[in-house]
Amino acid sequence: MTPPDAPLAADLADLLEAARAGQRRALARVMSIVERGGTQARELGALTFSGSGRAYTVGITGAPGAGKSTLNSAVVGVARERGERLAVLAIDPSSPFSGGAILGDRVRMSDHTFDEGVYIRSMATRGHLGGLTLATPLAVRVLDALGWPWVVVETVGVGQVETEIVGAADTTVVVVNPGWGDSVQANKAGLMEIADVFVVNKADRPGASETCRDIRQMLDLGAPGDWDPPILTSVGTTGEGAAELWDAICAHRDHCTASGELDARRAARTQTELEEILRAGIAERVAAITEGPAAQQLRERLARRELDPYAAAAALLDGAG
Amino acid sequence: MTPPDAPLAADLADLLEAARAGQRRALARVMSIVERGGTQARELGALTFSGSGRAYTVGITGAPGAGKSTLNSAVVGVARERGERLAVLAIDPSSPFSGGAILGDRVRMSDHTFDEGVYIRSMATRGHLGGLTLATPLAVRVLDALGWPWVVVETVGVGQVETEIVGAADTTVVVVNPGWGDSVQANKAGLMEIADVFVVNKADRPGASETCRDIRQMLDLGAPGDWDPPILTSVGTTGEGAAELWDAICAHRDHCTASGELDARRAARTQTELEEILRAGIAERVAAITEGPAAQQLRERLARRELDPYAAAAALLDGAG
Repeated sequence: MTPPDAPLAADLADLLEAARAGQRRALARVMSIVERGGTQARELGALTFSGSGRAYTVGITGAPGAGKSTLNSAVVGVARERGERLAVLAIDPSSPFSGGAILGDRVRMSDHTFDEGVYIRSMATRGHLGGLTLATPLAVRVLDALGWPWVVVETVGVGQVETEIVGAADTTVVVVNPGWGDSVQANKAGLMEIADVFVVNKADRPGASETCRDIRQMLDLGAPGDWDPPILTSVGTTGEGAAELWDAICAHRDHCTASGELDARRAARTQTELEEILRAGIAERVAAITEGPAAQQLRERLARRELDPYAAAAALLDGAG
Repeated sequence: MTPPDAPLAADLADLLEAARAGQRRALARVMSIVERGGTQARELGALTFSGSGRAYTVGITGAPGAGKSTLNSAVVGVARERGERLAVLAIDPSSPFSGGAILGDRVRMSDHTFDEGVYIRSMATRGHLGGLTLATPLAVRVLDALGWPWVVVETVGVGQVETEIVGAADTTVVVVNPGWGDSVQANKAGLMEIADVFVVNKADRPGASETCRDIRQMLDLGAPGDWDPPILTSVGTTGEGAAELWDAICAHRDHCTASGELDARRAARTQTELEEILRAGIAERVAAITEGPAAQQLRERLARRELDPYAAAAALLDGAG
């Protein structure tokens, strides 16, 4: 199962050290191991856990076509001007980071290609057990331990998994477009729930101010918290509004840190991750059990209706010890 | 944990006997035990497994508001006229069977209330471990063993779980409305995959024939099988098309039986159920462990970053034996 290019366990610490020292090839290998999952990924997790907990994570999500990546690129530019170093994880098959978008976007992203202060990585599952739900927090933790002070996670906000991934960030930015207030979207309530900052992107199109007002009304229907999500406007292609978005992210970070919410969010996140790992571990055991020779015999007895599925399961579980 | 009205284990066989003899109160108690899950449900499963395997199951699904229940009620009427006895499991919070719909629908369902040849039961999870994924096949098997030759399972086709439940039937009917071909629906591909019969209900509205044509085109894009799903039209409120739908269900049953696909589907279904029971069983063990004192200690070590989540999960799983 171990791929031929996989480093020996003893070399993982060296690889991490090289990545921490700024060697981009080493960093790319580390991220590939995380993406691949399995024993080595777990070892990386163990090696980096105690050194993590310093990075601030920002999630950026929105429907496909909302212009997240273009806006994200502009925001990264603003943060760089202010001297920040950022790692970007793009978990979005349509993202220019992962190569699925139009040329214009790609050219725009190439602004950051030779910048040592930015690391951009697209993430795919490749059969990772537990998928992105497990690979993403591990990737964030590794980047954190390697000294990246900001980790930006970009996902397309269509499904529950993507929403959970990005909602687990310290600050979550939801990118929408004019007309979103009227639109019927499967995941609208989920997005309303996780947003710390709203941005109406492509605000040069008609209806931007109405959409801001609609979002405000939807927010007012919810339970009031001690953070009132700001609703900004932007035009990703010109960079308009990117500086204000970065300011809003920093303001939310200051609020979270001062109020103690940051610690609470992070503790909850670790707990959720533990549960997800347990779930994946259970699925792994079930797979191992049902592929064994004892299972074959039980399957035959099941087919002959000598044994019901609950009795068969009990027999298999007892066998699994 | 055992509710006060729960029968003793020795009485379960008597209760089943009474339900088999046609006592509706006994049948209702049996179904409540199934719904509740746990030890007694498992005993019922063991008691009924060898006597099951005779009933034919029909799944009916569709988006909320597609008119499934009204159409289902009309189809039940047709089957009754042809002398069939049917049990209906409604797993749909908005179904008139479970009391969530408008008065008109409820009155319509009451047609079958005093008919000894129809049994209608709404199903809820009530914290059943593994939820409806486990409770539904058990309920079907119990009704099967109690002598119901047809078991109709109605679910709202919105999520993956509901789709899996209804897709596990011997024949699956997908109910849509005019315009479905153009609509963007999260679960469209899933519904296309499980449909043995399509019905465009509310076919008195504009666009029914276009929708039939769209579904045909979508089906033609898929891999050809030896069963070509028919695409019917109906008006549930008048009963139009209900007889043709029942005919199509019977035609699919004849095809499945003759081709041997029925046996293959049922074997696969038992296998899936076994896997789900294993998953729930291991999750139960993990839950017991994560609530114990060992877990509390691990959580504290996790908070102090002495242990990473993977190591904590491994320790918990080993403890779960």
